[in-house]
Amino acid sequence: MGVEIERKFLVDKNRWQQLEKPEGTLYKQGYLLDSSEKVVRVRVAGENGYITIKGKSEGFSRKEYEYKIPVQDAEEMLAHFSGTVVEKTRVKITVAGKTWEVDEFAGANQGLLLAELELEHESEAFEHPEWLAEEVTEDERYYNVYLAKHPFSKW
Amino acid sequence: MGVEIERKFLVDKNRWQQLEKPEGTLYKQGYLLDSSEKVVRVRVAGENGYITIKGKSEGFSRKEYEYKIPVQDAEEMLAHFSGTVVEKTRVKITVAGKTWEVDEFAGANQGLLLAELELEHESEAFEHPEWLAEEVTEDERYYNVYLAKHPFSKW
Repeated sequence: MGVEIERKFLVDKNRWQQLEKPEGTLYKQGYLLDSSEKVVRVRVAGENGYITIKGKSEGFSRKEYEYKIPVQDAEEMLAHFSGTVVEKTRVKITVAGKTWEVDEFAGANQGLLLAELELEHESEAFEHPEWLAEEVTEDERYYNVYLAKHPFSKW
Repeated sequence: MGVEIERKFLVDKNRWQQLEKPEGTLYKQGYLLDSSEKVVRVRVAGENGYITIKGKSEGFSRKEYEYKIPVQDAEEMLAHFSGTVVEKTRVKITVAGKTWEVDEFAGANQGLLLAELELEHESEAFEHPEWLAEEVTEDERYYNVYLAKHPFSKW
């Protein structure tokens, strides 16, 4: 178990594209449940599968429980049990000792670029890389659960 | 992943009580989701925790995915995320080479005794032990999801 503290930002597309960066990993994820109280997510990340249970967001924090599962199980559950599957390539990039996860969305969310940083506590300081744009941590439209139902290409 | 084929019976209380049988394990379980399409169950079984995803029942069969998780996580999820928790003691008893699971319910479902047998295929033969009473495989009132909402003591 853990409490997740996460800040989320839009990414400046031009600056991001010019950056030298590592290879990304293909993610596919869908939701068995997405209420305001709790979320049950199934994810395929490259060669691995995961199931994740998240509680309600409280400020920047939320309870989160994540378990590795066989990737074949994850694929089957996405095919049988979830609604729209969100697809993206996740690039991990370290800036001033902190690892950012930048998601380049595909499919119905093509064109969206989001950067996330996980923190130890809510007031923790961090360097803002030059490719960051505005913060959207508390904007629910950028939650993946929202993007599954209301893809970016239709905004 | 797997497809679960299960048959369920009531148990003759007098015959069951007179039987010599092994110690049972205490189970507590609750549901993060229980729709007709899919179920997400969290269970504490003795010293172990589990999360289980089940699909829709089709006859005696349903898809089932089960993962072991830290028991502390399971306890926390039952406390924070589930509705009513179903409590029971599960006794495993082997009859003619097949292992029956007999659940002695407690709490709000006190007085209910249910026996389950998992099979390889739907037409598989098995011996009926003398403590079995009527079959209730397709009676939805005996699903644990139903018992969580409508406990046996209130029937």
